[in-house]
Formats: sequence, structure tokens, C-alpha cells
Amino acid sequence: MSHSQRQLKSELGRSTSDTVTVRGFDLPQELMGHINFGDMAFLQITGRRPAPSESIIFNAMLVSLVEHGMTPSAIATRMVLAGAPEALQAAVAAGLNGLGSRFAGTMEGAARVLQAALPDATQPGDIKAIANAVVEDHAARRHFVPGIGHPLHKPIDPRAERLRAIAQDQGFAGPYVELMWEISASASETSGRVLPVNVTGAIGALLCELGLDWRLARGMAVMSRAVGLVGHAWEEINTPMADEVYRRIEDEVAR
Amino acid sequence: MSHSQRQLKSELGRSTSDTVTVRGFDLPQELMGHINFGDMAFLQITGRRPAPSESIIFNAMLVSLVEHGMTPSAIATRMVLAGAPEALQAAVAAGLNGLGSRFAGTMEGAARVLQAALPDATQPGDIKAIANAVVEDHAARRHFVPGIGHPLHKPIDPRAERLRAIAQDQGFAGPYVELMWEISASASETSGRVLPVNVTGAIGALLCELGLDWRLARGMAVMSRAVGLVGHAWEEINTPMADEVYRRIEDEVAR
Amino acid sequence: MSHSQRQLKSELGRSTSDTVTVRGFDLPQELMGHINFGDMAFLQITGRRPAPSESIIFNAMLVSLVEHGMTPSAIATRMVLAGAPEALQAAVAAGLNGLGSRFAGTMEGAARVLQAALPDATQPGDIKAIANAVVEDHAARRHFVPGIGHPLHKPIDPRAERLRAIAQDQGFAGPYVELMWEISASASETSGRVLPVNVTGAIGALLCELGLDWRLARGMAVMSRAVGLVGHAWEEINTPMADEVYRRIEDEVAR
Amino acid sequence: MSHSQRQLKSELGRSTSDTVTVRGFDLPQELMGHINFGDMAFLQITGRRPAPSESIIFNAMLVSLVEHGMTPSAIATRMVLAGAPEALQAAVAAGLNGLGSRFAGTMEGAARVLQAALPDATQPGDIKAIANAVVEDHAARRHFVPGIGHPLHKPIDPRAERLRAIAQDQGFAGPYVELMWEISASASETSGRVLPVNVTGAIGALLCELGLDWRLARGMAVMSRAVGLVGHAWEEINTPMADEVYRRIEDEVAR
Repeated sequence: MSHSQRQLKSELGRSTSDTVTVRGFDLPQELMGHINFGDMAFLQITGRRPAPSESIIFNAMLVSLVEHGMTPSAIATRMVLAGAPEALQAAVAAGLNGLGSRFAGTMEGAARVLQAALPDATQPGDIKAIANAVVEDHAARRHFVPGIGHPLHKPIDPRAERLRAIAQDQGFAGPYVELMWEISASASETSGRVLPVNVTGAIGALLCELGLDWRLARGMAVMSRAVGLVGHAWEEINTPMADEVYRRIEDEVAR
Repeated sequence: MSHSQRQLKSELGRSTSDTVTVRGFDLPQELMGHINFGDMAFLQITGRRPAPSESIIFNAMLVSLVEHGMTPSAIATRMVLAGAPEALQAAVAAGLNGLGSRFAGTMEGAARVLQAALPDATQPGDIKAIANAVVEDHAARRHFVPGIGHPLHKPIDPRAERLRAIAQDQGFAGPYVELMWEISASASETSGRVLPVNVTGAIGALLCELGLDWRLARGMAVMSRAVGLVGHAWEEINTPMADEVYRRIEDEVAR
Repeated sequence: MSHSQRQLKSELGRSTSDTVTVRGFDLPQELMGHINFGDMAFLQITGRRPAPSESIIFNAMLVSLVEHGMTPSAIATRMVLAGAPEALQAAVAAGLNGLGSRFAGTMEGAARVLQAALPDATQPGDIKAIANAVVEDHAARRHFVPGIGHPLHKPIDPRAERLRAIAQDQGFAGPYVELMWEISASASETSGRVLPVNVTGAIGALLCELGLDWRLARGMAVMSRAVGLVGHAWEEINTPMADEVYRRIEDEVAR
Repeated sequence: MSHSQRQLKSELGRSTSDTVTVRGFDLPQELMGHINFGDMAFLQITGRRPAPSESIIFNAMLVSLVEHGMTPSAIATRMVLAGAPEALQAAVAAGLNGLGSRFAGTMEGAARVLQAALPDATQPGDIKAIANAVVEDHAARRHFVPGIGHPLHKPIDPRAERLRAIAQDQGFAGPYVELMWEISASASETSGRVLPVNVTGAIGALLCELGLDWRLARGMAVMSRAVGLVGHAWEEINTPMADEVYRRIEDEVAR
């Protein structure tokens, strides 16, 4: 089998003997020392440097997701490190593998629902009615609306409220933020349960306000949690818990 | 088999119904909107917020490593995405798995060599003599000194020089930076080859100046490249090259 | 937050000082030297040893999936090994990450379609009519039927035909096998294209004949390709191609 | 940067429209239905089909490593599945990432020590003296000899003894097997501790008897544990424990 060849292209980076260019910028002269790590993430993904308010919002989003305690991902990272202490990168990678439908999926789902319900943000229409329709549609299909409700944080998730406040301060609390919070209100009323916007719902809404595709939600989670999991790996190196945990499980299962 | 239990401990994060605390800081009120993503990484790993000059240096280090073009890691990420487009996290994790001895290892190695050669930075002694000893020792064991030389960037690696300049501006170009550049000079002279400090050597030196353990070098690479690989995954979603690449290889191998 | 504890349980393995038990069998005395690796896989998953004909079929299924040439997964494994030659396990794991919807998904999908269309194999009814309904249903939703069609293997996929022949020889070519081949016939007729049952469709059908859940299809792929990817890793160690491939891509992208 | 191109080559597999060839064999006609999964693994790695006694030994080695109870790898797999239930392949891959120096490394280490101590098996010399030298050399460097000692299995590891018995039955208990057991005897005597050959030492020795490179030890572990971890993933789907485990850890850490 043979096939005609198509030219391979990438817009991310290139190098010559005395230059390194990333996304059209001279990396050493224009980026290093001039922009922070969060802005660099924005540039790497979107191809442009964020405006000052975008920078504040995007960094706050990334900061909010770094550390969530002893999640399944963090435990996976620690377990892999216990078996392969020489391969910290593989330990972090193992934890990232777990950012699927149950965690990253809700951020992704929230942004997707918002973008589908409001394809053109310049013509928002009746946000309350749209929110009700979203809630009814999910109820009819017996699906949860992603991005609302939290087992611990009630009646509000403080990270979500903080993200909304930052968006408001920066003039970015537009129709998607409004819609997300209306969905929470509508779902709470309909179900009779306390269903606050959680951090994943707020991230989803801000992603939409920044004009980013819903499919990038998972990428946000991956970038933040990579930082978080390096922290867990480093703590595990210094104060290990993996052996204690696995021996307890082994003992209990053998009973 | 039974064993006495040891209390599990973590200093990273904890939550109550209305608070989320990371490293002792109130995440929504004290961190989100107040610190950038690079400072959050510093905090997650070290347990303290960086001073302003540390922030500039640490962010510059992270920024310098994000994007290196079509590396083996980037290709691995794109290949995995081609097979499992629904699992972006697994694609990035696959690429991170490749941050081993050949790439992250040189940063790690450079920092390790520097910390071993100069265990107490307050008593640097004769840096030139130490550099010569490091180079001789490696030559005797027929090992390369990690952190110097580059196949493309000659006679200097512009990222390394920029990192040194940033360190100087911030008052952090101490004995480890000096030692790294003296090692380069000594190795170049001894070998008769052009062996500039490369980006991994500069990162290694700055890691030491910040007082961080050499084993964290790999963690720096993981955090930065996670961002870079999300960029590659996103470009692959929008402008795929994986199928073209693998079909070419398949064709050529079948000849 | 505190919660009542539930006893952890596992039926897979347990050890005392002088015994190792797997799935209720004495590993050294009853399994090692007595059963082959494929039968061990069957036992590990189902909890029982396969009957002789089940053994032949299950081993043939696993054997059929081991090696598929220079697939995206194989390339990912080789790329990761190039960066981390000391971590063969991470290289294989990277390749396995790519066994998602595009490859393993079709096996999974084929088995799922068959089990949904024929929930009770003892009452198959009119297989031809069921096949037509499956094809019409997919056409109406503009979905491909998983498990049929192949870019290269036309008019038949020799692995699929061989799996069917083995099933027939062992008395296991029941209604699911019949249904899979009827689906291929119906889809070919309806579409006017050549859509043979491919290896993933045949695996899906045999999985059903063995009474295994469709969700195990992905597990079959993982077990087989782990073997295949170890082979690629070992060839890469001895006859490397990763550096050549990535330099070509780098060059072409930089043009 | 441009470079002259080198032809890419692979000896593993190739396909035409009506054939699939693996390692020079017609996959459907010569392998499927004719060889078991363990023999296929041998073929994929070595390029030749095993002789009958090699087949028995190689399959026994693979069978011995499949299931080890609730190891750190198994827990990592279950944790990742809890976060990404749709990506079983990523869960197994996460567990495989942990097959590093602490587990797979001892098999690798045992085989490496044996091959270094006895480079030419046709001229074994005084095995007892070689064993003593190996033990003394490790003691002088304050290293453990890999492949001996076990926290639970005392005074013998039943899997190791069984592997030796199988090797004897098949006429493969040659100088490497003898050397491994002499090392155990010598180390036990020297240290005054009970240091039986464990399963990883026996695998290392048999690998040498089969003429395989010590670097393939890790590959053996990867192939076997991939099967074992699919079993853990499947049990986790049906009888989950990940949520219970992570909530317990979260609770305890938050105290």
C-alpha cells in the first residue's frame, strides 16, 4: 500500500542555531522573564498572548485546579512511584491517566452544555429560559447536568464563587457565567436539592467566556493536575505513604 | 501478614464544607486571582510562596521548557491521540512517560553534579578549580558532563544565556551559575569542542540557586512539558499529522 | 467528612508463607507448568479454567491481536523508549494508552452490538432479520457498524475467516458468529461496498460465543498488544528507528 | 538542520491484501489455532517458535507473574479506572508504569548478575566459587543481591522452587539455575539470614537458561502483569474498591 504524501505542518515551535521561536515569539527575548507560566500555557494553546484580564482569569482557573487532596489520581501517582522511584515522570503520567469522565469530564461537559445552549454569545436571548430548557432536557434523559452539586461544598463551592467574582472584576462575567448560575438555580429548584455551581462548572463557564473550545477543558485539568501531582510525588519521596496504604489493603483483602 | 499501622499524613491540601486550603493558604481567598500558575507550582512543591525575584526566575525556567518542537514526546502524544481521541489525558501522559534519562535526565544530572561539587554554597571556594575537577572526573570515567553541548545551538544556547541574564538581574547568579559556566569553559577547552551551557544545564544551575533539590529537576520538566503536550494534542485535533506519519512508516517498513 | 467503612474484598489472589493461591488454585502446584499463558489469562478474568475448546479459541483470539505492524501505538512505544530507554514499562504503557475508540473500540463495539441485538443466545430467532435491523439502525443514525470493513484486507480479512473456522472446528460457531457474518453480508449489499468481517468483528463475535461481557474486548486488546509492544520495544533497542523518524518530522515541519 | 535518511526497517510484521505475516509466519494459517499465547510472546520477542520444553518453561514463567494480589500496581490501576472508567487501557497502563526498579528491577538485576558472572554458559567453571564472589562483591558495595529473600515466603518461595523443578524436568536446569541457588546458599550463610531464591531470581535464572538477554526481564513482567491488571480492572468494574480506599485515605489525612 502506498499513498500520496501530505506535507507535515506545525505552528508551535521552531529553532535555528541561534534562535528558538514559539508561536511566533522569540522565546528567550520576548517570553522568558516577560510572561508567567499561565500566560505561556495560554499562548501555547491559543497562539496569542492573553490580554491582562484574560491572564488573571486564566491563571486563576489553573491555580484553582492544582491541588484537590488525596484524590484517586494522587494515590495512583504515589503507588507508581513506590514501584518505580526512578521514574517520577511515569508516576505523574499514571495519575493523569485518571483524568477521565468522572473528573475532567464534568468540566468538559459543563462547557459543552453551555456552548451548545448558547452558540452565539453576542445574542444570548432569554438566559433563564435557556437554563430551564437545559435542566428539563437533562431531567428527561435522566442525566445529571455537569458542573453543579458537590458532596462536600454546600451550600456553595467557594472556588466557584471566587472564579465568578474574578470574572466580574475583569469584565468577563458574561452570558455563559450567567447561564451556568441560572442552571444551578433552576436545577436546585426543580430537584429540591442544593446544587451549587461547583469548581468544574465555573471553569467550564469561564472557558466559554474566554472563547475557548469546550474540548480544551480536559487540557486545563491536565496542565493543572500535572503540577499538583508533581507535588504529591515529591511529598511521597519525602514522607511516603504508598507502602503503608498497600499493606493495609493487602492485609484486609487477605482476611 | 498483619502490621502495626502508621498514621497517613499530607501537608498539601484539605477541605471543609466552606473552605479549601492548599499548603496552609485559603485557596479561593489568598491564592486564586492573587498568584500566577508558576508561583502556584512553586508553592505546591516547596510549601511557601516565592519571593518576587524567585517568582521571576521560576516562571522563566518553566516557560523555557514548554515547547521544544516535534520531539519524541510530542510525537508519542499525537500517536496516542490518533488511537484514542476521546482520551486527551492519556495522550499527554504517554508523552510525559518519555521524559526520562535522555531529556529530563540531563537537567537532573546537571543539578546533581553541581550540588555534589558544591554542597555548601556559602563556602564556594575556588570555583574554577572545582569546575576543572568535575570535568576531569567525568573524562576519567568517559562520561559526558550533563548540561553542556547542543547539536544545534552553537556557539551558545540562547535560552541558557537568557536564564543566566535573568538570574543576574534578580541577584540569583551565585556560585552554582558560575560553576556551571566554568564547567562549560573547562570542558570546551579540554575537549577542543564547542560545549556551551545548554538550557538543561542552566535550569539545573538555577534550581540549585533557588535551593531546590536536584531530584525536582524532572518534576520541572514534567510540569512544563504537560503544558507543551496539551498544545501538541490540541494542534493534532485541529491539524492532524499522526495518520500521515504512521502510514509513511508502515509503507517504508513494508517495502 | 467521615463515612462508615466497607470491607475491601478481592477474589484474585492471596498468599501465606508457603502458598500462593490465584483464583482458588495453588499457583505453583496446579497452574505453573500445567496451563499456558492464554489459559491463565482466561482464568484471571473469568475465575475458571477454560475447557479445551475454549482454550483453543481464546488463545487464537489473543494470538491474532499481538502484532499489527507499525501502528500508532507501536510508534508511541518506540518514541517513549527513545526518551526513557531505562523505562521499558513506561514505553509499553504509552502505546497501550492509544488502544481507545479507534482500535479497541471497534472490537468492543462489535461485541456490544451483537449482545444488544441478541440478548439471549439460546433463543436466536431470525438471524438474517436481526442483521438487517442492525444495519438499518446504524444507517439511520449514520454510524458505521463496528467490526466490518478494512482498508487493506479485501474482499476478506484472513484473520477473521480463520477465527471463524477455528470456532467451527471447536463447535463454537453459534448465533453470534452467524449474526456477525450476516451483518457483513447485509451491510455489503445495502451499501454496495465490500465490507468483510474484520479481525475486530470476529473477536467480538467469539467473545460473545464464549459468554464474555462486551466490555472485556478492550481488555483482550490490552493483553495482546502488551505482548506485541514489548516486541516493538525490544526491536527498537536493537534496531532503533525513533531518532530517524523524529528528526525527519522535525526537519519537515521546520521547512 | 537536515540529515541523510536511513531506511526504516522492522522484522515484526507485514500485511498484503490477503496475507498477514508475523515474524515470517503466516499469522492465520500457521499461528492462530496452532500456538498458544505464551509461545506467540516467545516468537514475537525472539523471532522463532519455542521448542516444546522451551514452551513449557516460558509459559510457566509468564503464568507465575500474572497475579500478585493487591500490589501498588494493582491499586494504581483501580484508582485510574475510578476516574476514567471509559479508559480501561489507561488504567492498565498506569499500573504497568509502576513496574520499575523495585519490582521488575529485581528480575532484571538477577539476570544481569548471572550473565555478568557467567558470560559463557558452556564453560561454567567452579559455580560455588563464582557464587561466593558475587555475594562478597555485593556485600563489599553494601548492595543486596537481587533475586533472593522475601518478606513473606520463608524458608522458601514456592514459585521459585516450582520453576526450578519445571526447568529440571525439561532439561533446562543448567549452570545459571545452579548459580542462582548457590548465591542464595552463600548469601544465607554469610548473612545468617534466610535468603531463599524468590520468584524474581528464578525467572532471572530461567531467562538466562533460555538464552535471553537480561534486559528482557522487564518485558516478561510487563506482559504478565498486563494480563493480571486486566483482571484487576475487571474486578474493579464489578466489585469496586477504589472509592472506599480513597475516601478512607482522604478522611485520615484530613484528621
